[in-house]
Amino acid sequence: MGYNRRKRFFGSIFRIKATPHKLCAVLPKKLLCCKKGDYCMNIAVAQSGGPTCAINASLVGVFRESLKEPAIDAIFGSVNGVEGIIQDHLIDLKTMIRTNEDMELLRQTPSTVLGSCRYKLPDFHEDSSVYEKIAAVLKRRKIGAFFYIGGNDSMDTVQKLSAYFKEIDLDVKVIGIPKTIDNDLCITDHTPGFGSAAKYVATTMQEIIRDSSVYSIPSVTIVEIMGRHAGWLTASSAVLHAYGEPAPHLVYVPETHFSAERFLHDVEQEMAKHKAVIVAVSEGVSVPEGVQSGLVDNFGHKYLSGIGKYLEQLVRDTFGCKVRSIELNVMQRCSSHLSSKTDIDEAEQIGAAGVQTALRGETGRVMIFRRIHNKPYTITMEPADASQIANREKFLPREFLTPAGNNISDEAMAYFLPLIQGELDLVMRGGIPVHFTIQESVLK
Amino acid sequence: MGYNRRKRFFGSIFRIKATPHKLCAVLPKKLLCCKKGDYCMNIAVAQSGGPTCAINASLVGVFRESLKEPAIDAIFGSVNGVEGIIQDHLIDLKTMIRTNEDMELLRQTPSTVLGSCRYKLPDFHEDSSVYEKIAAVLKRRKIGAFFYIGGNDSMDTVQKLSAYFKEIDLDVKVIGIPKTIDNDLCITDHTPGFGSAAKYVATTMQEIIRDSSVYSIPSVTIVEIMGRHAGWLTASSAVLHAYGEPAPHLVYVPETHFSAERFLHDVEQEMAKHKAVIVAVSEGVSVPEGVQSGLVDNFGHKYLSGIGKYLEQLVRDTFGCKVRSIELNVMQRCSSHLSSKTDIDEAEQIGAAGVQTALRGETGRVMIFRRIHNKPYTITMEPADASQIANREKFLPREFLTPAGNNISDEAMAYFLPLIQGELDLVMRGGIPVHFTIQESVLK
Repeated sequence: MGYNRRKRFFGSIFRIKATPHKLCAVLPKKLLCCKKGDYCMNIAVAQSGGPTCAINASLVGVFRESLKEPAIDAIFGSVNGVEGIIQDHLIDLKTMIRTNEDMELLRQTPSTVLGSCRYKLPDFHEDSSVYEKIAAVLKRRKIGAFFYIGGNDSMDTVQKLSAYFKEIDLDVKVIGIPKTIDNDLCITDHTPGFGSAAKYVATTMQEIIRDSSVYSIPSVTIVEIMGRHAGWLTASSAVLHAYGEPAPHLVYVPETHFSAERFLHDVEQEMAKHKAVIVAVSEGVSVPEGVQSGLVDNFGHKYLSGIGKYLEQLVRDTFGCKVRSIELNVMQRCSSHLSSKTDIDEAEQIGAAGVQTALRGETGRVMIFRRIHNKPYTITMEPADASQIANREKFLPREFLTPAGNNISDEAMAYFLPLIQGELDLVMRGGIPVHFTIQESVLK
Repeated sequence: MGYNRRKRFFGSIFRIKATPHKLCAVLPKKLLCCKKGDYCMNIAVAQSGGPTCAINASLVGVFRESLKEPAIDAIFGSVNGVEGIIQDHLIDLKTMIRTNEDMELLRQTPSTVLGSCRYKLPDFHEDSSVYEKIAAVLKRRKIGAFFYIGGNDSMDTVQKLSAYFKEIDLDVKVIGIPKTIDNDLCITDHTPGFGSAAKYVATTMQEIIRDSSVYSIPSVTIVEIMGRHAGWLTASSAVLHAYGEPAPHLVYVPETHFSAERFLHDVEQEMAKHKAVIVAVSEGVSVPEGVQSGLVDNFGHKYLSGIGKYLEQLVRDTFGCKVRSIELNVMQRCSSHLSSKTDIDEAEQIGAAGVQTALRGETGRVMIFRRIHNKPYTITMEPADASQIANREKFLPREFLTPAGNNISDEAMAYFLPLIQGELDLVMRGGIPVHFTIQESVLK
């Protein structure tokens, strides 16, 4: 890790007018829990946006690192993202996560244990009322740093909150911890959550290939993979090529123009070579206007079916062969039983690095990964300006696609392969992985 | 295991007019590879019906046990089920499966490595032409026993072939090795393949529950699970109750009458109690006539969408809340990365027991499991008449359902839980499980 703990700078943190830590009041000066000064601070952490397998590992990262820091007293979890701050719905995480075993279980639990939201803050120059509520809660709770684990929408919150706090001279550091299975955040090499989703997609694709090739008749199998604007996850299904698997034979991502005629031509060519043709397609691949909304049920309601079903019907109508489509659906983002250990470990580490960044006095920053080497795979973590990441998307580079634009290049493999390595040593109970949960009543 | 190896009876096997084993011709009499008599036999094994995670383990069971038996010489794999016998498309498995490592990889590979078919033999009294082809191939290949790994349709083949061979006095034993994720075979306590599918369904259901409960707004999630006529697999999703998980809150199986009004009433009741309501539904639950076929795409084609999508729309129209449906699709039968070790071990053992049954001289028999105890879980394997199993289905007993018929009873847990225990120690390469495959050209 390129992160230099010796460079920490605590100065600005201790300007917070926090109450003395409970122990600080009774311990002799040299045993004070806070290293510099008389006051400790509390922190808050929240999770936002769509679930992944790694968000809870980032929460563990923030939590475990904060436990080690004498400068940090209470660790609050905000329920349902920033909404929990607005409503002062904070829970004391030390009373919830009590042991190392709890942390291990949380690392293997998918989704957001604190709940999530898709809340977009207004521009505070136009409407500052919600900002005032947030500032009041943070002050009352003596919170010196707020960590927001989320995607590029959530980084908008990081940017706006940090700017507002500067404006009102409130010393609360705001740090973004990235997460998204879509891997579409700018600046960072990749995002926590993506590696586990990619591992699930590639493993499941391999199993679907086995399942699809059992009968002697020709067939086409279409696998619809998440990714509305960027094709990272769909592309990751092609890592199987690195192990000699010819399938998926065709891969379509939103980054290239999709033509139904070209698709049918591609399928025909592959059918001449393979008995069972396997196609990976991003949910975000656009189909001709009106095709999807043209589907209606018997009540006359619009039936929003995906690109997979559309292509299935197209192949059936054109070739009359056996064809089916499979939507990997939410399993892509919640199958933590098949997490990438690399991903989960990195998710925890970047959460911890976020704590150190706040303690160094930085704010309005988002932690990013920088890749140093592919072999051996080496990354560093560092902060970047939230404004460089918020509300932006990163797309699959052209060189990751084959010249024809209907499959993934070998060049992409060096990028994808390190991210899916390693498996968690899962804690099982009676044949099922154990999850860490917080009682529904506490979260209400 | 209640299986008594000492009771083997080799007599009838050696009536086969097979050529002497290669070694038999050169070794002194007392070192003959065949224990009794001068002749060895070859065997054939085939896989049929829909894929599961455990069919290949049963193939390993037949193969490994046959390797140990000096009475057995060549082990032929029939490509694409009984079709491979008809077309004399047999491959020498000893040249394909060469090491213990190969067998381990085959155990963790989903689907049928030899290919499959859905071929139904005619009544031989009416049309014996295909039977004559089969008999000719078996005679030419010196095959003394044929093992057919399949579901209740395949057991029809076991029954018909064994009856025909008796009729023409051809001494080829025909033994059925059960498999189906549907668990709907009669007589046997359960079927190989079911335990792994149930483990996948329960684990994925738990992950979907986590994924579905992150937002603060009320929602309904409908999970569509395989099972056209029997609800075993859908019911297995409720094993989570045994670990204190209240969800799935509602479970609908084909064994009970489905009423849309009753369903909406149930959902409303659960929504009053839970923020995120989770429903498990069998694909085979019948909806009002014409509802599914009423869906058309913009070409005017019938759009066969499943029960999940139908119920999703029904909930949306009635309650206007956030709702989604998830189809677990083929992942239920091919996710061997999450196999039940109990299932895979039993699948191998029942294949081996089938070999011993043939060597005892039995034919027209299907191997079954009999459960002796739940705690500790103990089973025996024994043969049953194929006629008792072929073309019949076993349904979920009434006592496995709650009185209201919309969930699974605690009584069912004792049945389901032992079947999902244990995990394979997967061989991984670069983050992905390794599969055993046979070259496409060999299978053509």
